Amino acid sequence: MVFEGAIFSSVSFDKADFSPKVLTCIDQSGLIDRIISVDEPDYKSVKQTAENLNILHPIPKGSYLLPGFIDLHVHAPQWPQAGLALDKPLDEWLQKYTFPLEVKYKDLNFAKENYTGLVNELLENGTTTVLYFGSIHTDANLVLADICAEAGQRAFIGKVAMDNPTQTPEYYRDSSSKESLEQTELFINRLLDKQKKTGAELTPVITPRFVPSCTDETLAGLGNLAKKYDLPIQSHCSESIWEDHYAIERFNLRDTQVLDKFHLLTSKSIMAHATQLNDSDLELFKQRNTAIAHCPISNVYFGNSVLPVKHIHEKNINMGMGTDISGGFSPSIYRNIQQSVMSSQMLQDNSHSDSRISATNAFYLATIGGAKALHIKTGQISVGYKADFQIVTDQYFNSMSNEPQDVFERLIYHTTKSEINEVYVSGKQVINRGEHHGRK
Amino acid sequence: MVFEGAIFSSVSFDKADFSPKVLTCIDQSGLIDRIISVDEPDYKSVKQTAENLNILHPIPKGSYLLPGFIDLHVHAPQWPQAGLALDKPLDEWLQKYTFPLEVKYKDLNFAKENYTGLVNELLENGTTTVLYFGSIHTDANLVLADICAEAGQRAFIGKVAMDNPTQTPEYYRDSSSKESLEQTELFINRLLDKQKKTGAELTPVITPRFVPSCTDETLAGLGNLAKKYDLPIQSHCSESIWEDHYAIERFNLRDTQVLDKFHLLTSKSIMAHATQLNDSDLELFKQRNTAIAHCPISNVYFGNSVLPVKHIHEKNINMGMGTDISGGFSPSIYRNIQQSVMSSQMLQDNSHSDSRISATNAFYLATIGGAKALHIKTGQISVGYKADFQIVTDQYFNSMSNEPQDVFERLIYHTTKSEINEVYVSGKQVINRGEHHGRK
Ligand SMILES: [Zn+2]
Ligand SMILES: [Zn+2]
Repeated sequence: MVFEGAIFSSVSFDKADFSPKVLTCIDQSGLIDRIISVDEPDYKSVKQTAENLNILHPIPKGSYLLPGFIDLHVHAPQWPQAGLALDKPLDEWLQKYTFPLEVKYKDLNFAKENYTGLVNELLENGTTTVLYFGSIHTDANLVLADICAEAGQRAFIGKVAMDNPTQTPEYYRDSSSKESLEQTELFINRLLDKQKKTGAELTPVITPRFVPSCTDETLAGLGNLAKKYDLPIQSHCSESIWEDHYAIERFNLRDTQVLDKFHLLTSKSIMAHATQLNDSDLELFKQRNTAIAHCPISNVYFGNSVLPVKHIHEKNINMGMGTDISGGFSPSIYRNIQQSVMSSQMLQDNSHSDSRISATNAFYLATIGGAKALHIKTGQISVGYKADFQIVTDQYFNSMSNEPQDVFERLIYHTTKSEINEVYVSGKQVINRGEHHGRK
Repeated sequence: MVFEGAIFSSVSFDKADFSPKVLTCIDQSGLIDRIISVDEPDYKSVKQTAENLNILHPIPKGSYLLPGFIDLHVHAPQWPQAGLALDKPLDEWLQKYTFPLEVKYKDLNFAKENYTGLVNELLENGTTTVLYFGSIHTDANLVLADICAEAGQRAFIGKVAMDNPTQTPEYYRDSSSKESLEQTELFINRLLDKQKKTGAELTPVITPRFVPSCTDETLAGLGNLAKKYDLPIQSHCSESIWEDHYAIERFNLRDTQVLDKFHLLTSKSIMAHATQLNDSDLELFKQRNTAIAHCPISNVYFGNSVLPVKHIHEKNINMGMGTDISGGFSPSIYRNIQQSVMSSQMLQDNSHSDSRISATNAFYLATIGGAKALHIKTGQISVGYKADFQIVTDQYFNSMSNEPQDVFERLIYHTTKSEINEVYVSGKQVINRGEHHGRK
């Protein structure tokens, strides 16, 4: 496949590149093979060849090729309550809404129906790679994996481990530490099998819900499993004032130190929220090369404060973007990029000088930042990278300024799934709205 | 016309009503005539009659009749830059982007093209009544009026008055106070004429840009014109720390007191932003029965702080919702409702206890609050009120909980213009997406 048209792609925290007219060539394995700009000598011949082979895909004027987004934090089972009960305090939200919902995924039909809706929704929003929290149910998590494989989304999936009787409800917890670890290992093996057999881009993830929900044995066992299988780790870290107090009370340690003590803070770890990290926590994140999933919408409701993205970036700690469905109500990374910029502005108003970030900064998090956190070659439109794309239409093209920076900002601020026409993962088309939707 | 189906409508700050199945009957003048619930004896006969007359409009399951939204603050000429340059400080944003854009509306073709796009965009987003700042150009403002009339949107429009040479650029200001007042009065008379001749719902509005941009003579003259013609007044009030300092320096008064001194703070006044009002300002707002246009997105960028909506509501001061295009990037009142809830939550995190508002509270502002501010009978689906409606689809109906409160929150959090299928102003259909768009 050869795409012809304009590209926006992040190159660094402070810079997104615009290429007005290039050929982006994808090889059989779904990698970007060559990018040929219009002034190169063989532009015409390559284009002609692609045309002859019927593999030329022109991107219309006013539409743009962007890297697919990477969502570093989704609670897959919580999708049916996205946007609901957000006026409730965290504890009530968990006990009265979230846990009763998550337990329903024991029913694999329920899981199949809801996970199908979610995976499709995320793809429609331009999200090509997702790091998922599943539920505690091994089989339901495998259903999620099947659905991702079938829909063509790259997925990192964790069986949630939670067995601490004082911090989890009886009806929704692993019955023992042994059970928690056995099921985690079973899930790992089943998913690795599936991956080997089908070639689908699926990776199991070690997933302690968060420190309070796990016993010491489970935290230790999960650390061992991460090492044994060399796997990514995901959890929540220092999301709230309460969470930090809890760690001090139980361990006389900071939340970060607890995770580290159990070998859960590695270069393959991605910790969600992290709004309460202090400078010594950040130092530890940096030493371990652990990444943060920035969830700007969710943080408004549950994070007790704004993640100081600029400050953390300056400390050379990597961050990606997460929707945190359903602590965050929106499945759209665009919407979260917008919120991250706005939250940073509000942080500045609250006398944290120089904390404002730009749309360009947030776009970096949503693409390159996420890819680095997951150690995958995607998130940018460069040779050798996976062909994970979204083709997005600027709905105001021609009726407003067509300067690249203006178009870029308009795309960031105005794109909803209606403007995302096509989505590709590893070169394979996974969404084509043109097939389903009339256009004005 | 008789609509059959489910309704959500605000009844008070704390309550939105749900009616699962009613007939909403519209009379020839575009008012709601009767609302008949399914258990009333003549439900069937009225429905049958409507069917026979071919005026029954069934609202499909999973779609809902909601009041059209009222947007209390739009800078019409700024639409082409919505979402752009939001990382710039206010002064640079005004001088380098906004004023150079507004001056272009001298060209009536430019005005026509851009205003057509804007009015259609707002209608597509479910906004049936708008309070517009125009530009300084009388003729271009009349073009805006014509476009609103033709598109069927209820519009309150102001010719912007700005003549203070020290606070406005030479290329974009009224050449003198005399010119400013004469053009304002000319615009008033032209618009009142147009209104009389065509019956379109158009109202002229006294519009000092804000205190700093006007000379004393102009402020005084505008106060007189408001009284002479008994007109609404719109301006910005205490939007920023700078604005407050300016009023003290020039008048040794608070911004609110300056407006009041010039008779610009009346029961027909609507002041945008008001983020910096102190309790004595609020007391004056209450005495004058002046309303506030709450612009939650714009306030993040330019307001220097969050409007304490709950606090102000408890003081019995009326508020409506404003997008503040293009200080706010989004033409969607839904998006602003979401932001108002989120901003109130962030205010609470910054130790303003009990400041959190709900989706229901913000929905009240966007409908009844706005209607009260403009003294028009709309914003609720009740007998005797104007039939200003939007028919909105819950895109997740049936795949998620169908409890009314859940559906309501989902509509508030997930609706984009793609889900707004039809829009009515005074009983007249002004948007019908079904005509243009395929549906999945
Ligand atoms: Zn989470
Ligand atoms: Zn304004």
